[in-house]
Amino acid sequence: MEPKQKNGKHEQIMSAAIRVFAEKGYFQSTIAQIARAAGVADGTIYLYFKNKEDIMAQFVNQQSKKFFDTFTSMFEGKQSAIERLKALIRLHFQVSQEDRYVALVYQVEMRRSDRLMKEDIKDALRMYHDLVGQIVEEGQQEGAIRHDVQIGLVKRMIFATVDEVITSWVMAGGKYDLEPLAEPLANLLLQGIQATPTA
Amino acid sequence: MEPKQKNGKHEQIMSAAIRVFAEKGYFQSTIAQIARAAGVADGTIYLYFKNKEDIMAQFVNQQSKKFFDTFTSMFEGKQSAIERLKALIRLHFQVSQEDRYVALVYQVEMRRSDRLMKEDIKDALRMYHDLVGQIVEEGQQEGAIRHDVQIGLVKRMIFATVDEVITSWVMAGGKYDLEPLAEPLANLLLQGIQATPTA
Repeated sequence: MEPKQKNGKHEQIMSAAIRVFAEKGYFQSTIAQIARAAGVADGTIYLYFKNKEDIMAQFVNQQSKKFFDTFTSMFEGKQSAIERLKALIRLHFQVSQEDRYVALVYQVEMRRSDRLMKEDIKDALRMYHDLVGQIVEEGQQEGAIRHDVQIGLVKRMIFATVDEVITSWVMAGGKYDLEPLAEPLANLLLQGIQATPTA
Repeated sequence: MEPKQKNGKHEQIMSAAIRVFAEKGYFQSTIAQIARAAGVADGTIYLYFKNKEDIMAQFVNQQSKKFFDTFTSMFEGKQSAIERLKALIRLHFQVSQEDRYVALVYQVEMRRSDRLMKEDIKDALRMYHDLVGQIVEEGQQEGAIRHDVQIGLVKRMIFATVDEVITSWVMAGGKYDLEPLAEPLANLLLQGIQATPTA
């Protein structure tokens, strides 16, 4: 269902739904609770969303689009692949830290939802994998990234590691600062853990 | 509830449950289906397990114990930290490849289960993190692993990456060989993706 943006009601319901999903958990949440939190009648929800699954699906698409648009707009000039990879990790940490409810729903509740939704999650994941793959290939052309790596493994390593660090932060109640971890994490992914002979 | 091992019935029910969870999904599975698959009466299940959640909890504990016992028994002599880390990744891939039903339940279905179970999953994860932390610290003492890494990030990177590669393999229906990925993946984690100035 296409979002109808009139009156900002769509946004109002979406914000309320994120809050309800984060506080009560996705499974336990009901349309009635979301309507109450948004200050609208139950029936109003159905003008904008098919059902609870559709709210989650639109949430995933909206967040992913916002993330990738922001990332794209950050690079007007020419940055190196390494700089872009570091910026990607930093942005991921920043948007998570910015709104812990959104982060909690994205990192935890989204993954508990039904099979129906799997396609939207897969699309978002594919976009992330494609972006990392593109950056890594550019880095190889620039001579900054090794040629003897399997791109499929590199994509999984970068996505899974960043994702796990954010999920740990969410599960710990967001009690520490996530952004300062971006630099050491990027360094780990770039240089690995092994000591170099000269070190 | 302590498992009663008499008659091998416990093992028989556990195997059937893994098959049912893998084929029907954890949420959709019932005690009646597990009993039928195991060839026992419904009531027999309750001699060994409190409920469906208890079957999953015992599964997690049993698999984790088996994994860590096997890993420990592999090192009689003195292996370097790097060798042990590589062996850990290889073993993780081997046991996953050995039994795809077990891998599917461990990687996917286990994580969909109730909050009640979270403690058992947390324990298994903590054991893995502790083991990696111990190997990394030994590697630092041996001079093989950099001292300027944050151990918390290293643990998350190694666990999340190995876990993600296994989950991708499970979700792809186990259609390719997992074990040959152990060496290139270990190499990635050890050396990172950045080209060295001399390369």
